[in-house]
Amino acid sequence: MTQTPEKEKVSDLIAVALEALGIEHLFGIIGAGNVHLFEAIARRGYTEIICVHHEQAACMAMQTYYRTHGKLSGALLTTGAGSTNGVTGVVSAWADSIPGIIIAGNENSKFDKPDNPLRMWGVQGYDSVEMVRKVTKYAHRVTAPEQAVYEIQKAAHITLDQRPGPCWIEIPMDYQSSRIDPASSAQFVPPVAVNTLPAELATQIDSVADALLAAERPLLWLGHGIRLAGAEKEIVPLLDLLGVPALVSWAGIDMVDSSHPLVFGRAGVYGQRAANFILQNCDYLLAIGTRLAIPQVGYDLTELARDARIDVVDIDATEVVKHKARAREMLVCDAAMFMRALIARLTQRVINPKADWLARCNAYQDQFPWVGPEHDDKGGFMNSYRFMERLNGFFKKDQIVVTDMGTALLCGHQVLKMREGQRLITSTGLGEMGYGLPAAIGVSIALERGEVMCLNCDGGMMLNLQEMQTIAHHKLPVKLFIFNNDGYLMIKHTQNALFKTGYVGTDRASGISCPDFTKIAAAFDMPAFQIRHWEECDDTLAKVQAATGPVICEVFMHPEQLFSPKLSLVSKPDGTLVSPPLEDLSPLVPGDVLERAMLGGMHEKSKSLRIS
Amino acid sequence: MTQTPEKEKVSDLIAVALEALGIEHLFGIIGAGNVHLFEAIARRGYTEIICVHHEQAACMAMQTYYRTHGKLSGALLTTGAGSTNGVTGVVSAWADSIPGIIIAGNENSKFDKPDNPLRMWGVQGYDSVEMVRKVTKYAHRVTAPEQAVYEIQKAAHITLDQRPGPCWIEIPMDYQSSRIDPASSAQFVPPVAVNTLPAELATQIDSVADALLAAERPLLWLGHGIRLAGAEKEIVPLLDLLGVPALVSWAGIDMVDSSHPLVFGRAGVYGQRAANFILQNCDYLLAIGTRLAIPQVGYDLTELARDARIDVVDIDATEVVKHKARAREMLVCDAAMFMRALIARLTQRVINPKADWLARCNAYQDQFPWVGPEHDDKGGFMNSYRFMERLNGFFKKDQIVVTDMGTALLCGHQVLKMREGQRLITSTGLGEMGYGLPAAIGVSIALERGEVMCLNCDGGMMLNLQEMQTIAHHKLPVKLFIFNNDGYLMIKHTQNALFKTGYVGTDRASGISCPDFTKIAAAFDMPAFQIRHWEECDDTLAKVQAATGPVICEVFMHPEQLFSPKLSLVSKPDGTLVSPPLEDLSPLVPGDVLERAMLGGMHEKSKSLRIS
Repeated sequence: MTQTPEKEKVSDLIAVALEALGIEHLFGIIGAGNVHLFEAIARRGYTEIICVHHEQAACMAMQTYYRTHGKLSGALLTTGAGSTNGVTGVVSAWADSIPGIIIAGNENSKFDKPDNPLRMWGVQGYDSVEMVRKVTKYAHRVTAPEQAVYEIQKAAHITLDQRPGPCWIEIPMDYQSSRIDPASSAQFVPPVAVNTLPAELATQIDSVADALLAAERPLLWLGHGIRLAGAEKEIVPLLDLLGVPALVSWAGIDMVDSSHPLVFGRAGVYGQRAANFILQNCDYLLAIGTRLAIPQVGYDLTELARDARIDVVDIDATEVVKHKARAREMLVCDAAMFMRALIARLTQRVINPKADWLARCNAYQDQFPWVGPEHDDKGGFMNSYRFMERLNGFFKKDQIVVTDMGTALLCGHQVLKMREGQRLITSTGLGEMGYGLPAAIGVSIALERGEVMCLNCDGGMMLNLQEMQTIAHHKLPVKLFIFNNDGYLMIKHTQNALFKTGYVGTDRASGISCPDFTKIAAAFDMPAFQIRHWEECDDTLAKVQAATGPVICEVFMHPEQLFSPKLSLVSKPDGTLVSPPLEDLSPLVPGDVLERAMLGGMHEKSKSLRIS
Repeated sequence: MTQTPEKEKVSDLIAVALEALGIEHLFGIIGAGNVHLFEAIARRGYTEIICVHHEQAACMAMQTYYRTHGKLSGALLTTGAGSTNGVTGVVSAWADSIPGIIIAGNENSKFDKPDNPLRMWGVQGYDSVEMVRKVTKYAHRVTAPEQAVYEIQKAAHITLDQRPGPCWIEIPMDYQSSRIDPASSAQFVPPVAVNTLPAELATQIDSVADALLAAERPLLWLGHGIRLAGAEKEIVPLLDLLGVPALVSWAGIDMVDSSHPLVFGRAGVYGQRAANFILQNCDYLLAIGTRLAIPQVGYDLTELARDARIDVVDIDATEVVKHKARAREMLVCDAAMFMRALIARLTQRVINPKADWLARCNAYQDQFPWVGPEHDDKGGFMNSYRFMERLNGFFKKDQIVVTDMGTALLCGHQVLKMREGQRLITSTGLGEMGYGLPAAIGVSIALERGEVMCLNCDGGMMLNLQEMQTIAHHKLPVKLFIFNNDGYLMIKHTQNALFKTGYVGTDRASGISCPDFTKIAAAFDMPAFQIRHWEECDDTLAKVQAATGPVICEVFMHPEQLFSPKLSLVSKPDGTLVSPPLEDLSPLVPGDVLERAMLGGMHEKSKSLRIS
């Protein structure tokens, strides 16, 4: 068959479509299953493909790229292991409601049929769509070359629509290279967005406004859904109008200046004591754009803010409904639409100051500072909470921080105060070890190879260690802090709490060890610093922050340092285990302190833990 | 509720069950979702858990562990990313028919319901069973603590039964720690194996025996299914009895001494010229225990052994049926049962020698040696095929070799001659980059931390780079050869063949680079050697083979060295592309050479490529 001159290669049409969608960057690895796409996209010259060294990293970098500046990107995966390798990053994006288009190659289309009973489809193929169907908003195999552009455009719409999340488009290899009449290439037309408030929602927002004004101790809990809705700029006007205290979710910390007088920190299982007391003493809780995940509210909703009416605003009806045992108004609503409608109502109302309640909130803050005596140094090691506080002082005006899990996550999110324009980004949903390095890459690429601080731990460093080379290759100015605690510190604590049989698989002596990261730094031609003591801390931090390229700074901490405060199982005097309510963080405060802190009095479980 | 003294923890019952199953090793990483299992298994002290640094590596090491000595093992994964990380290794085991039990943790059972509509189940959970359903023989969520042991026992049966493959058992966290009456713990009783030959198969085997004896140019093609059936010891008796030439699949190379006078190498898309000529000139082909994958037979079955009757013996009916356009007898049969039945029949028959045919086969071998002029050094670099031949001379009597993809795979499987007792193991199905390092770990652990040679490439090293630390931690004597070709050489060739636009994402200049592996070696405290020229080759190889711990040897090759011979698309004089038949490997031999080599004459496509 001779090709008529006007036919165009599908990969070229996709490259054009990506440009029209404004997708400036993709992350990926080349392979036989995406070689045509790589070539066409590179030749077009609009979308830059950042090559990583494991596809999981592509699907993580894609996330922080979006979170940095709100521009959509995606991952370009090849057949077989190229797409299986991406799965962890996809589930992570799914959990954190981050958009991204994953374009996965597959074998020749004749093999890619759901009813193909062979283990392998063609050479290296398999049913990637079925694999990710339950962990994506949309997973679809392109079944005709004329549908490829349409499906990418459709994915670009779905991934951002309502609650965001990743979309997976599988394109067989032969379609990528096939030539079609461009006029036959289907185009997806996004539906027109409806921006009018349904009557039921209007009534609910009235109810929220009434409750906010009537409450004696109202509290807002602000989540990342606000930023995803593009409404983070509404936060301060709402707070200033209302004069009501607010908490932020971990993913929402950087939406508002931590020093705002109405922002009182972060409650949760690994929450701050003051924030948890404020939460547990409010009489009205309004959660906006946060799914109130278990790490925020614990496992027992009946113990959450026991004296409060709870209203929840979430764009995902499924998430809203899960609170039905505790929530009064459940508003299935975009956070931006809700906040604007609420502000409009409130501006027409008389708003009484909540001076007593605010005084109480401030008193909690004074009594239970973010870093306190429980974070004193021990055993000649610097405490990582105190270190984090010190590091905070070295932040730049526009500091962007990403974290891996463990110490980096827990101490970072408990201690770091973020100013306006600064960012703190992590994986709060899946919480996968290894997120830190690709997260740093995504941020840096979004900033046109700009600066980013990556807080990591020795254990988590390993799961994307290969991405050190991606950082080195592009000379990305990543300030890489590695908290060295000899293995997996969180699990060590779990083992200490559950067993008396010692560690297994959590430190060098029990079967797992990490390399010398100063040597690792040398392997990737990066300068390395080490901090073991306070005397060397400030000088070293100054040097790290002054460096212009990638740099590693290893921070040595006690291999058994506690994470504190934390909601923990506690033994009663008779030995039985009790799961205390959210205000009663471990190490437990004395009974009289707790009694004074709780307006409704101590919970029976807390009392039972304090009978001598 | 007080616990009656006789109750036992489910994790302890599982540890006992693993011991009863003879599972001496598991590979994994600890997390909140498997902490009870780790503790119980370690405390019992029978099954050793080898901690790796990424779960994909656990599911790959599990495979080579089994392939080394035939003992079943598995992977122990935690919730969330712990299980998503394992997916690539699972699909790889699935593709290569390797057994293994993957035990995956999940959140508390109350969250783990297929109809749970939330994105996250509990904190970090998701539907792992649904994710892997199509790429495992059995994927099951334990839905009661009493079923946990049963499911592991059932998986241990299914994973090995008939065509092996991985099984995935998800056990919610709360079940792992729950205490039950051991008498209530269900036990799986494997069905009694039926070893009698069905009448239809007996008739088919008679037909095979007749065909073998009647053919003038019979050929056996022996695959890994023979080893999986435990029948590799039947190969030499069968060959010696029949006096018929045999080819081996890549996964079957090491089942029989490469120097056996009836073993004529490896045919395929990246096959040896002599082997492909033998294949394409036979008049009867009997394939035993090989699925005749596309890399073996190409995309067009009508061009395979065009003058031959083809009979196929495979335990998987699905695989057998895919050959129906070309195959006469399709025997759904275990390779061991088949070979023994065939030998029994043949011993009662008169077997005429096939002297002419064997002479022809030997002539092909002489005319087209495995390493020939097409493998001459170029540009001052050693040719990797020639290097492989040299390396082969340094093999130890019981040398075990694993390979990653690319150069390591292609040159290794084309050139290496394996003696009895030596092994050559790779991932032929999924063919995932990164397989090499965990494959080496699996072998070494199977050998009680014994010696293994790992052939790797710069590109493939990166995808499991973290496992360098696992090797270092256990001081495993891995001889790690790294072929440095500046990136992804196979894809460079694809780009050269398809495009005139240069490389994208395949070498340092086009966006991807690998670190200096001598520095990487230093980071993991391993000695490093480099080979760039023949003068230093033998001395260095001797040193590497004499080393007692892990050692790296980097081999520098031409960054554009061709893989040859290879079945390639070829341009006709008029510019149109032709896919030649399997005997016509590139670089093409002259027409008269091909004409003489093909008893049935040149294929029309081959002729069309040689019209000047």
